[in-house]
Amino acid sequence: MEYKITQMKNAFYAQSGGVTSVINTSAYGVISEIVSREKTTKVYAGQNGIVGLLENKLYDLSKTKKPFELLKDCPAGMFGSCRYKLPDITDTKFYENLFKKLDAKSIKYFFYNGGNDSADTCLKVATAAKSLGYDLNAIAVPKTIDNDLAVTDNCPGFGSVAKYIATSCKEASLDIKSMCKTSTKVFILEVMGRNAGWIAASAELANTEEMNLVHKILLPEIRFDEGSFLKEVENDVSRYGYSVIVASEGLKNKSGELYAASTSKDSFGHNQLGGLAPKLSQLINENLNLKYHWSVSDYLQRSARHLASGTDLKQAYEVGKYAVNFALEGETGIMPVIKRISNAPYAWEIDKGDLKNIANLEKTLPENYISDCGFRITQDGKNYLEPLIQGENYPKFENGVPKYEQLDLHISD
Amino acid sequence: MEYKITQMKNAFYAQSGGVTSVINTSAYGVISEIVSREKTTKVYAGQNGIVGLLENKLYDLSKTKKPFELLKDCPAGMFGSCRYKLPDITDTKFYENLFKKLDAKSIKYFFYNGGNDSADTCLKVATAAKSLGYDLNAIAVPKTIDNDLAVTDNCPGFGSVAKYIATSCKEASLDIKSMCKTSTKVFILEVMGRNAGWIAASAELANTEEMNLVHKILLPEIRFDEGSFLKEVENDVSRYGYSVIVASEGLKNKSGELYAASTSKDSFGHNQLGGLAPKLSQLINENLNLKYHWSVSDYLQRSARHLASGTDLKQAYEVGKYAVNFALEGETGIMPVIKRISNAPYAWEIDKGDLKNIANLEKTLPENYISDCGFRITQDGKNYLEPLIQGENYPKFENGVPKYEQLDLHISD
Repeated sequence: MEYKITQMKNAFYAQSGGVTSVINTSAYGVISEIVSREKTTKVYAGQNGIVGLLENKLYDLSKTKKPFELLKDCPAGMFGSCRYKLPDITDTKFYENLFKKLDAKSIKYFFYNGGNDSADTCLKVATAAKSLGYDLNAIAVPKTIDNDLAVTDNCPGFGSVAKYIATSCKEASLDIKSMCKTSTKVFILEVMGRNAGWIAASAELANTEEMNLVHKILLPEIRFDEGSFLKEVENDVSRYGYSVIVASEGLKNKSGELYAASTSKDSFGHNQLGGLAPKLSQLINENLNLKYHWSVSDYLQRSARHLASGTDLKQAYEVGKYAVNFALEGETGIMPVIKRISNAPYAWEIDKGDLKNIANLEKTLPENYISDCGFRITQDGKNYLEPLIQGENYPKFENGVPKYEQLDLHISD
Repeated sequence: MEYKITQMKNAFYAQSGGVTSVINTSAYGVISEIVSREKTTKVYAGQNGIVGLLENKLYDLSKTKKPFELLKDCPAGMFGSCRYKLPDITDTKFYENLFKKLDAKSIKYFFYNGGNDSADTCLKVATAAKSLGYDLNAIAVPKTIDNDLAVTDNCPGFGSVAKYIATSCKEASLDIKSMCKTSTKVFILEVMGRNAGWIAASAELANTEEMNLVHKILLPEIRFDEGSFLKEVENDVSRYGYSVIVASEGLKNKSGELYAASTSKDSFGHNQLGGLAPKLSQLINENLNLKYHWSVSDYLQRSARHLASGTDLKQAYEVGKYAVNFALEGETGIMPVIKRISNAPYAWEIDKGDLKNIANLEKTLPENYISDCGFRITQDGKNYLEPLIQGENYPKFENGVPKYEQLDLHISD
């Protein structure tokens, strides 16, 4: 197969997987960097990720009139995201068709902004491009609230969720503390995290030397034992007057099955989760007969741009910018990753990660971050988490709510 | 019965009922005003509301060393709150005992900060004081996220929840909008509101002329019809690609019973609510087979001081300050209420409300605030709601989370 690609060096950018409150900041990093460095490069953004490419729905960003800076203030995916699994690279027909589409737009740079599933997509595209002779620089831009990507020290998107969860836990716990004498004694917050407990772990940051506000953290890494959990909750209530529990949606029972499973699955075959908080409440109510409340933060946690972390925003921007640097240097099949240099003062730099070591892998909490009892996070864990939630960066408000102005987007002919 | 009260004119302040993110600002209004105007007055704060008085657990605020200004930054109830129903005023023994306790501390001013149940408490105390000859000025200070108090135009606590819900809906809706092509198509947010739909209604403020982000609002004022709801959700999904639904926990079925009831009750006999969002999700899944997500904001919405409304904070302070003014003028059995003078520009003043017209009553959404379809809020409703969420007032952050420094409190001898 022959491709026309010669002089024009256009770029494709797309967002994939669950969105975050800072993924648009990575988009800004990619777009502003390439536009400033390669004056003749046109950037096409996929409408709903790779799906937009397959369905000929690309936004031609050269037609956008509003400033790209708006991206830095907006949560969620400005261009639309997708959950879409590419076929195996042996499906030559599929990839030839895909490269024909890229070729039609003279696209040489391919930026795919997502998590482990999206790294898989980007790796397949990079590998297929090599074997089918399409001259492509395919770079994955890291994004996931789950913080479960391998190689990178942490993932853009996570720090802001961690800040939201720690703040929300502190607020809700002070509420229950006020009420526990005559009312609610147990509060359960269900947070995201299928196999890795990073988000739940961040609730530990609500605790300080003066205030112990989050009492139990239930991690998917630790098999859940109802008996010891109930005993712990009872202890908390007699010691503090109340108990605040943060539970990871992916909590597993003793046999390693989801403690609160649902039957529907997404296109990657993952179970749709939810319903853990009411299940735990019922357990507590039946056994301890304590007044409870529960909350499920779900999408609220990952879209809360109003409480985004300053560190997270900086890193989201830098991985986008470096993705362009690496592409222009001729790299492919890699991802800019964050390398931690020191905890205090917090220092980090951008490094290169091979997608082969990232795609489809999940990094869970290391053992030394989990306390011996299994219900708390150690000082090592706190030292890791703390720098990621530093700094406030409020969006513009208009009429009492964040403005979140959207770009004008125009589908390419 | 004789009381010693003569020269000393001390004050009692307590917090009652569900707390809010700005009730401590009302506490600051009361305490700072009385301390600045009556140099010899000692302020005692009830530990956990009226319960602290009955159990001889009063904080002597003259012993507090940290500045009371800290109260303005802290959500929840600094002194602890309670859900505790006083006996009927025919129970002379109970009230004689209560006044003996007030008398022992030379308390002439009684400030009770709460909602309709707490107005009932304050009215009983005021009435019993008159009939038993205890010289007391009992003033209720309004507080409730439910915004359901009669007489007052709105209630301190509500504006901040409204701002939180409108902001969270805007954020979550942009998230679903990004994902709906290949993933989640329906999002349900369950919010507080037993009989009055004010909080759910505030989700309408996420919508602007450019962006229609919240599609259905389910109010306790409107009997829920599964069939027409499902048809509406289906329409939303085909029109917008997704549907965002905000549901009041107190949603009623056609016979007026709670659509998602729980069996436990609080000390006032109210049902403990929760579980509506999963129930609605199941309904949608079984009938429309659409991928859904749901969230329950519960205590997170009412404790979110990080997103408090500037208007709300100002009003919370003023009702506290005016409560002192009224008490010093010799009033009793009343509540400072907010009187709206105009919508645009928003203007308001503090007026007096008789507790007889407030205690135990609930103000629901007026008909002209609810659209004909029953699923949306009218422009009249938006005009009422909008001024209440204006202005941002961020708390101090330390180490990535709000500081929320607590006062040092010392139980009186």
